[in-house]
Amino acid sequence: MTAAAVTPPIARAELIAVGSELLTPFKTDTNSLFVTARLNELGIVVRRKSIVGDDPEDLRAAVADALTRADLVVLCGGLGPTGDDLTRETVAALLGRPLREDAGLLDSLRTRFAARGWTMPDNNRRQACVPEGAVVIPNPRGSAPGLWIDEGPRVVLLLPGPPRELEPMITDLVGGRLAARVGPERLHRRVLTVAGRGESHVEELVQPIYDRWRRADPAVLTTVLASPGLVELHLSTRAGGADAAGAVLDPAAAELGAALGEHLVSDDGRSLPDVVGGLLQDAGLRVALGESCTGGLAIAGLIDVPGSSRYVEAAVVAYSNDAKRRLLGVDSALLETHGAVSEEVAGAMAEGARRAGRTEVGIGITGVAGPGGGTEDKPVGTVCVAVAGPGGAHEQQTLRLGGDRAMIRRLAARAALDLLRRVLLGARATVRGG
Amino acid sequence: MTAAAVTPPIARAELIAVGSELLTPFKTDTNSLFVTARLNELGIVVRRKSIVGDDPEDLRAAVADALTRADLVVLCGGLGPTGDDLTRETVAALLGRPLREDAGLLDSLRTRFAARGWTMPDNNRRQACVPEGAVVIPNPRGSAPGLWIDEGPRVVLLLPGPPRELEPMITDLVGGRLAARVGPERLHRRVLTVAGRGESHVEELVQPIYDRWRRADPAVLTTVLASPGLVELHLSTRAGGADAAGAVLDPAAAELGAALGEHLVSDDGRSLPDVVGGLLQDAGLRVALGESCTGGLAIAGLIDVPGSSRYVEAAVVAYSNDAKRRLLGVDSALLETHGAVSEEVAGAMAEGARRAGRTEVGIGITGVAGPGGGTEDKPVGTVCVAVAGPGGAHEQQTLRLGGDRAMIRRLAARAALDLLRRVLLGARATVRGG
Repeated sequence: MTAAAVTPPIARAELIAVGSELLTPFKTDTNSLFVTARLNELGIVVRRKSIVGDDPEDLRAAVADALTRADLVVLCGGLGPTGDDLTRETVAALLGRPLREDAGLLDSLRTRFAARGWTMPDNNRRQACVPEGAVVIPNPRGSAPGLWIDEGPRVVLLLPGPPRELEPMITDLVGGRLAARVGPERLHRRVLTVAGRGESHVEELVQPIYDRWRRADPAVLTTVLASPGLVELHLSTRAGGADAAGAVLDPAAAELGAALGEHLVSDDGRSLPDVVGGLLQDAGLRVALGESCTGGLAIAGLIDVPGSSRYVEAAVVAYSNDAKRRLLGVDSALLETHGAVSEEVAGAMAEGARRAGRTEVGIGITGVAGPGGGTEDKPVGTVCVAVAGPGGAHEQQTLRLGGDRAMIRRLAARAALDLLRRVLLGARATVRGG
Repeated sequence: MTAAAVTPPIARAELIAVGSELLTPFKTDTNSLFVTARLNELGIVVRRKSIVGDDPEDLRAAVADALTRADLVVLCGGLGPTGDDLTRETVAALLGRPLREDAGLLDSLRTRFAARGWTMPDNNRRQACVPEGAVVIPNPRGSAPGLWIDEGPRVVLLLPGPPRELEPMITDLVGGRLAARVGPERLHRRVLTVAGRGESHVEELVQPIYDRWRRADPAVLTTVLASPGLVELHLSTRAGGADAAGAVLDPAAAELGAALGEHLVSDDGRSLPDVVGGLLQDAGLRVALGESCTGGLAIAGLIDVPGSSRYVEAAVVAYSNDAKRRLLGVDSALLETHGAVSEEVAGAMAEGARRAGRTEVGIGITGVAGPGGGTEDKPVGTVCVAVAGPGGAHEQQTLRLGGDRAMIRRLAARAALDLLRRVLLGARATVRGG
């Protein structure tokens, strides 16, 4: 075997998203997240991402630059039938490969249109053109096939832009053609979900631990990812198999989990609503909600989980005081004495939801989401959450949340579900302890 | 005045987002959307975006490349105090400008820490270093100042990564320092919001119209933006002032609006919940909702709009049949005869919500969001929505929605609000007509 016959493995990728709409203030490239996840599974690291408009000169420069640095260049978008779609022609010209119409592709395009009772527009003929030497990657969900071009030891991959077409195509490639071109190591991950603590607080808590793991051999890389009301710790390591990865990731996850204590929601990537649902189902409990400022966001979160009808009964969104009285049976005297935003009213709403839904557990949420309605005592961001049941349990909590209206509502819904999680864990511990 | 004294206006920008977390599958650059919006206001077009990790070599290459093409290069991120934050040092080295510690900056950093009762860690000293000739852009919300560097006729701008720090800084620059560096033309926009039609349907309807406007002089550029359940048409044109822009955009918007007919929700960027809220408020009506498969999403959408307490009374999320009977008074016989997912039950839920909330208008939503629960007659995606009132009005509709559970729920909530919109428009037309 000569040296020239051994192709080096693909290790570094660059992604190029093509489309002028991705350079407006309204739309950003998200395909790269999916593509990165699939490539990472093979241990391929993404080193750079570029976003260019429907301009052949810009596109040509971006591809030429990327080829000087990366083993794999993935282009997403610009394979459609319109005049704006120039990826195929631009890449073919850059690589000096003439485009040839592929009779098989043309046939299947015509069949695709005929199946809908349409004649194929002439525009679409371009989608049957293939650069010399390229491999056609079938697109079962659209008219633009993908193209795989071996350019010496490098690979240029052209994929259509619509996520529902691109996603199955890259998944297939990662399972086959791409897997054959990488080394034996893969990237393995573990995700820890955290509740009740902000990003900086979590950073501070876990930094001494992950600084140590990052210098270990093999290294465990940790990323703290925060979106409103949600913090996740992502651990990753490179290993030849799941057992070897587990031997590295398990102790790191355990140590981080211990530092997070009751704020650790899950160490397997499960979301808060998923974990709360599991606890309810295990205990054979059903829940009903009384929501005010969150306006349905808490039950919407719970119902996001498939199968949630087994433990979610109902919610009453009582936005006015009158609705709180009539639909949740909150006492007028309570509203007058403590105000609508109070732990007392949150507790009464939880109790009222439990009664209305005839469930074992009730949740109550009331607060000031703003921008108006704040007072000196109860400024915008003041939220009271309460859990009634199981049994005689009553827990309530007052939060001072930051952010705008949408953020406060999201954080409040999340805080209520987290309170329920801790109540259910406590109840379970008590039963087990007894 | 010599030729050298006339600096050409800034017209083309490139954005570079810096941070290894932006090359993972979990996080994408979104700062660029905000920055693009602000730059577009000045008529500055974004030609390319790049995302690089915390690697000085990659970062250096990206900045050097961008400087060969753009008048303005904006870097976001990598100005923090940690060892990973290398933007300041890398750009200074590339441009051959030594870094000098700025005594004033160092003072204000120390004051910042002292105000919190902390001593400034030595790490943070780096944030007081300024490349020779750079202008310091104050950051009122964080410790990393921005840096403006005039590099011949070009400008390199370094901004911190956290959105709450970056956003006020770029807004200030667009109002001042950057505004002084652009020509007299600005980009003006108009946004048409569309309901009840998918992206491809809207494309087909409006393409002949916007093809014509795009060839007009001055040209009106049209972008169709679709996210689940929402289609927007964005029109833009370059003009010296609002009046000149209106003279171009108004007739284009009017022609597109006429083609969209009752599917046009607004021609001023207002969202569907906002428009529905306005119609309710104008007519002095309040609404209550009975939701099943949407599980609170419809009321959550309405309540997103500040001030919605004026017209939103309550919602009952009745997930089980039992809850539909007890909380919304849906007749058992109706549930048995027609099934929970039927126009009859949707209508009864709307009526029940109106009764429970003592409002003039009620909405009912019931459907199969999946993944389980579909039948041959009522496959996953079958959703019935109904509106009861104002007065004796009763409207209901059965939809067959595509997508996964989350998508079906979002589309269903949106369809219900759109049905209410059309009922309210009809009622208004009747009153006015009478």
